[in-house]
Amino acid sequence: MMLSIFMLISISWSVYYNETHTTQYLLLSSAITFFSGFLAYMLTRRHDHRNIGKKEGYVIVTVIYISISFFGSLPFFLSGAIPNFSDAFFESTSGIATTGATILTDIEAIPKGLLFWRSMTHWLGGMGIIVLTLAILPILGVGGMQLFVAEVPGTTPSRLHPRITQTAKRLWGIYAGLTLVQTILLMFGGMDFFHSLNHAFSTVATGGFSTQNDSIAGYSPYIQYVIVLFMILGATSFSLHYFVLKGQFEKVLNNEEFRFYLGVIASFTVFFFLVLLAVNQSGIEYTFRKSLFQVVSIITTTGFVTTDYMEWEGFLWFFLFILMFTGGCIGSTAGGLKMIRVLVLIKNTRLEFKRLLHPMAIIPVRVNQKTIPQEIIHNFLAFFLLYMLLFMGGAATMTLFGLDFTSAIGASAATLGNIGPAIANVGPIDSYANIPDAAKWILSLYMILGRLEIFTVLLLLSPSFYKK
Amino acid sequence: MMLSIFMLISISWSVYYNETHTTQYLLLSSAITFFSGFLAYMLTRRHDHRNIGKKEGYVIVTVIYISISFFGSLPFFLSGAIPNFSDAFFESTSGIATTGATILTDIEAIPKGLLFWRSMTHWLGGMGIIVLTLAILPILGVGGMQLFVAEVPGTTPSRLHPRITQTAKRLWGIYAGLTLVQTILLMFGGMDFFHSLNHAFSTVATGGFSTQNDSIAGYSPYIQYVIVLFMILGATSFSLHYFVLKGQFEKVLNNEEFRFYLGVIASFTVFFFLVLLAVNQSGIEYTFRKSLFQVVSIITTTGFVTTDYMEWEGFLWFFLFILMFTGGCIGSTAGGLKMIRVLVLIKNTRLEFKRLLHPMAIIPVRVNQKTIPQEIIHNFLAFFLLYMLLFMGGAATMTLFGLDFTSAIGASAATLGNIGPAIANVGPIDSYANIPDAAKWILSLYMILGRLEIFTVLLLLSPSFYKK
Repeated sequence: MMLSIFMLISISWSVYYNETHTTQYLLLSSAITFFSGFLAYMLTRRHDHRNIGKKEGYVIVTVIYISISFFGSLPFFLSGAIPNFSDAFFESTSGIATTGATILTDIEAIPKGLLFWRSMTHWLGGMGIIVLTLAILPILGVGGMQLFVAEVPGTTPSRLHPRITQTAKRLWGIYAGLTLVQTILLMFGGMDFFHSLNHAFSTVATGGFSTQNDSIAGYSPYIQYVIVLFMILGATSFSLHYFVLKGQFEKVLNNEEFRFYLGVIASFTVFFFLVLLAVNQSGIEYTFRKSLFQVVSIITTTGFVTTDYMEWEGFLWFFLFILMFTGGCIGSTAGGLKMIRVLVLIKNTRLEFKRLLHPMAIIPVRVNQKTIPQEIIHNFLAFFLLYMLLFMGGAATMTLFGLDFTSAIGASAATLGNIGPAIANVGPIDSYANIPDAAKWILSLYMILGRLEIFTVLLLLSPSFYKK
Repeated sequence: MMLSIFMLISISWSVYYNETHTTQYLLLSSAITFFSGFLAYMLTRRHDHRNIGKKEGYVIVTVIYISISFFGSLPFFLSGAIPNFSDAFFESTSGIATTGATILTDIEAIPKGLLFWRSMTHWLGGMGIIVLTLAILPILGVGGMQLFVAEVPGTTPSRLHPRITQTAKRLWGIYAGLTLVQTILLMFGGMDFFHSLNHAFSTVATGGFSTQNDSIAGYSPYIQYVIVLFMILGATSFSLHYFVLKGQFEKVLNNEEFRFYLGVIASFTVFFFLVLLAVNQSGIEYTFRKSLFQVVSIITTTGFVTTDYMEWEGFLWFFLFILMFTGGCIGSTAGGLKMIRVLVLIKNTRLEFKRLLHPMAIIPVRVNQKTIPQEIIHNFLAFFLLYMLLFMGGAATMTLFGLDFTSAIGASAATLGNIGPAIANVGPIDSYANIPDAAKWILSLYMILGRLEIFTVLLLLSPSFYKK
């Protein structure tokens, strides 16, 4: 029912741009969505909500994401803008999961009302994921996140329940604030309100849908830098934004994940900048901006594009490909493995050598001056394993559908990591339009899998879930 | 000094085939090797060997593999058969590490005495690795192997030292026996003694060097099946061969790793067989043999070739590529992750879902009716992580040297996993001849890294190793 209300907001744009056809079908989609929600509410309202436990939590989260993806596809499909339902579902899922992979080949031909809805799926998906990763998944124990998000008041597992609404409101306030500021900054750069709002939605959600066929490539350097800044902020843990609001800057500056995240961005940007400068001999600012933009766009799992990096030296896009795995910070709108996991696993690997020399000693991993319990490290390692298995399985499945080696690997990594554009035939200037429908459904599942930290979804497929 | 004696054995072949030039340089190489060994012996004989601890163990193992690779390259280099030293070292390391990656483009043009030496590096490398993985690495605690190889009498860490010679002799007896039986079986198939012995060396060591330019493709079905059988035996834990000799068949049949290993081979063979049959419509036996041979050759990390699998459907060689990671059984001559690690990690991943539902319960992984301690699982997970990081880092480095995406990924996986031939430009009918020299040195390191279970070598590069 909430979703149907957001669809109505899109209608204001289709009305403004005189898109009668789009207006009608947005209204129809909104109505179907509302009544489906109402029906579901009526069917379940007699249930005692105090009985909702962990198992129900997993089911609810997964079902919500899948059903929002479904209803989100209605405006595209019913209006005929995306006549193939597999395509419409893929596009909607890509929006909700803040992936940004598109099956559209001519984005500018799509009515404005629908483009706005497309951007809004990003924004709603990002909104959902912040609350999910900071408040709900930690209670469910998914992905070992409980330790790293426990600092926002109200999100400690034990005392979250009574304050979950308050926490959600606070986080959404920050999220809306960032969106507003970015919209204003983009308008300062000469972008009109419609396009500014669309791009702000896509940026803070680290989604990557643009309203332009050439993504961000055609915009001014100023606008590109603004987008870089907000991609970085979107992939920063929202608990850090909260600390900034409270004036607790030292907590932000001392946060090891945040420092590591900025360090990775800085070092890869410098590397790309120096190589591209040496190879192409273009302008310094131009080369720097191109490097910074693509590194940030991939690490934050946004997927905006200012240049066709497939034309770069082979090893440069191989490094971009590897960055598709790192992801942004935990508790942000970014996907991927997440910086905290990468950091803890790097630290743990280094200590593993020490442990080999001193098998009897207990050598703990420490982050932010705190010892990370063994279970969390085990959980991170298991998460990494599962991530890699899914990545390889996904790539193998894509080759079954006839994708070439590089495209298959790219499609699997870029959907599981919620990035969007990948490499080869699903690269920065291509779309997912030409892959078979069945493969699109699998990649849609991969986007949701990645978005919900894998365990949430896979648990529902494991037999032990259904044992009493 | 031992190595120099084995070089002398090769001389008997160069004498037999009237290769005077080769004989001279094998003699010279043998002399240099002997006197270097003698010098090293004289310099170190006054040291008290009772002071050799764990740290010295890591150094000794790594230094032995690198120096044997170095001295093993002398016959190739000094005789001028491989005039580039980087190439000669690569070829020798590939032999010692039982990888089978070659820089030779015309193998049949190489003198017989050198070909025999080339096969013998495999055989010696295999001999070394059996004792290393069953007796020495477990004491050093490398790769969590201690638990799975402790069943051979004399290899239990606590009481290995006094009986290490006896254990080694026993294992080498089995190894030599397998080689002998295979040689005889190959000769039954019409192969002459020279080629039979060479191929037996390469097979039981799961190496992959052949004396023919087209590897095993030109041989009869009978010979191909014999080689399949001995590849499977070579990649089976030698502790199981020992049980067979003692008549303890139930220990073999109940061994979960062995069953899993055979199951993986069987299921992938059937899968490849059915697909190839449907696609190519060739003869049933021919298709079955081709499928079986390539699946076994890759899983056992041998790398023999009977067909250019790069001409198969893209998804088939993608599956072969994934099999490059699994490897054979622990305590065998095979490389890769090893079946036991794959098995334990799969079991652990499945239980991870159970743990998520019951965070307070202790849910252990069980193999062969025994509970696997948490430290071993942690060790396996850390090993997997390091393996994947090295794989990705290796591929990234290869792209820096100008290899294309697919070849870079293939070269990294096939050297780290000790397979040999990979995919694309380093595929089954190609060689490593055309990659830059610097890249060959890195891949040589990768072969040794993979062969010595990664930790053994990397530990020497970690700062904590040099702290008191």
